[in-house]
Amino acid sequence: MQQTRLDTARIRMARRVIDPMFLDTPLYRCEALEPGLGCAVSIKLETANPVRSFKARGTELVASLLAGNGERAVVCASAGNLGQALAWSGRGRGLDVSVVASRFATAAKLDRIRALGAGLELVDGDHELARERAAAVARSEGIRLVEDSLDIETCEGAATIGLELVDSARQFDAVLIALGGGALATGVGHVLKSLAPEVEVICVQPLGAPALTLSWRARRVVTTDSADTIADGVAGRFPIPAVLDDLLLVADDAVLVREESIITGMRMLFDHAGLVVEPSAALGIAAILEDRDRFADRHVVTVVCGGNVDGDACRRWIGAAPL
Amino acid sequence: MQQTRLDTARIRMARRVIDPMFLDTPLYRCEALEPGLGCAVSIKLETANPVRSFKARGTELVASLLAGNGERAVVCASAGNLGQALAWSGRGRGLDVSVVASRFATAAKLDRIRALGAGLELVDGDHELARERAAAVARSEGIRLVEDSLDIETCEGAATIGLELVDSARQFDAVLIALGGGALATGVGHVLKSLAPEVEVICVQPLGAPALTLSWRARRVVTTDSADTIADGVAGRFPIPAVLDDLLLVADDAVLVREESIITGMRMLFDHAGLVVEPSAALGIAAILEDRDRFADRHVVTVVCGGNVDGDACRRWIGAAPL
Repeated sequence: MQQTRLDTARIRMARRVIDPMFLDTPLYRCEALEPGLGCAVSIKLETANPVRSFKARGTELVASLLAGNGERAVVCASAGNLGQALAWSGRGRGLDVSVVASRFATAAKLDRIRALGAGLELVDGDHELARERAAAVARSEGIRLVEDSLDIETCEGAATIGLELVDSARQFDAVLIALGGGALATGVGHVLKSLAPEVEVICVQPLGAPALTLSWRARRVVTTDSADTIADGVAGRFPIPAVLDDLLLVADDAVLVREESIITGMRMLFDHAGLVVEPSAALGIAAILEDRDRFADRHVVTVVCGGNVDGDACRRWIGAAPL
Repeated sequence: MQQTRLDTARIRMARRVIDPMFLDTPLYRCEALEPGLGCAVSIKLETANPVRSFKARGTELVASLLAGNGERAVVCASAGNLGQALAWSGRGRGLDVSVVASRFATAAKLDRIRALGAGLELVDGDHELARERAAAVARSEGIRLVEDSLDIETCEGAATIGLELVDSARQFDAVLIALGGGALATGVGHVLKSLAPEVEVICVQPLGAPALTLSWRARRVVTTDSADTIADGVAGRFPIPAVLDDLLLVADDAVLVREESIITGMRMLFDHAGLVVEPSAALGIAAILEDRDRFADRHVVTVVCGGNVDGDACRRWIGAAPL
């Protein structure tokens, strides 16, 4: 494999910095899901922690580095999970955390960012406008901007999930990874392609927010004019060139799935796995549902990457009227 | 502390026998729950594994011992979780597992027992009749009867949760434990009273199935004529004397909670923690809801002991109509 921006030794070192609460998350076969999917399915569960997503693996690295350098403040744009994780990691290290988000972001995520003591600025536009605004804040205040997927720590943090999959010594045929900015896919993908190259790395994105998948297929950055999906955690439009370069080296495939498959996936995870997940975390199940033949009788891992949902939206998706 | 039937050194040894998939489960502070409860709350999550409950910690010990002794078959009575766990542990060790359950048991639990390849016999009565029938099967077939809470392995398995709480080196004021047959409470309680005696051990049972709590209060076995609760996992009527003796040594309190508090607890865990739990796993939250003053500003751990629910029943409880 050609060199990505990641380094496996550094990823192993990262495990010493990240609060153990976010490491060694559950990894288990979920047979109850299998009759409906036609393949063996294992879950890597990233939701059972104080921020209910994998993002703290990366923010622990970022915040630790900043605190070690005597920095006092940090800003990021976020659809909600990165902001929440940075707020958590920063709070414990005395950092002043600011988050910029779209005012259309999931309310439950914004509430948690505020509750964790971060400053929250909302922009009247989508996540790409929040990214612009966060960069402007960083420039004007002279503080560190954390850019998800571009900043290597966010990829290295996510990559520790890959190490845990490889170190589990269990045999998998494929790993399904939600594709948004690309930190999760390039991080986990780098480790798998380095240490277990026989495992297929499959990225999954919603049809309604396909920019990075289209870019991967075209082997050049493709942007989109809009993003329209319930999977708010992966709804970017402007892929980052350096991330695409890495993704081209580590992803075996990138597939797009329909909204109805995401909802069916969320419902299956609720009914058969007892899991509350956000739409992005159901992308892997959606990919199996849309291409059963491809996965038939194989053993697939799906990374359940986040569980931050609005309660009533979740009730609707799992087939239930709000209170 | 006077001697219980448990031994801490044996419990440490048990960790070497239990499949690591069931050990070192997530333990994390869940701040989103706290405004509604008025105290600091940490969750010990026992649902993210192939059987969605803590019971496999015990059945791993039982099945390993039986297989080591060349036994071929085993039978237990179960409300559903023990049977599922024994089916899982036995299957991996070539044991022929039979489970006796009430025909009124939670359908999702019975389905999983069958799916795991165990023989399932249903009795036309409650869990106490299933216990009688399982004992008769064991006698007539000359095979091992696993008796939950009486058999020391079931307590030792549960006790490994206590070790993980103590070994986490985090400071708690109280641990809330669902009380059914008593394995979880005496197991975790033994470890806490041995290694962290300052932590209050509080057992929680539904008002509708209070037999062991009434026994603990009376310091002698009290049986009830019926059990009426949605918390199917803890709905026993005939406490086991040896278990009560241990419980008298390790429990600081045993409280009873209303059904409506259990449902509110399930709803809070869904909305604020993103967790699907069975009613028994919400008993701890219910106990806080019913006595906020007692817990105000303290740090409480609640063991989320199981997540096997019927999907549509769960939808009703969390405030949602079935599909």
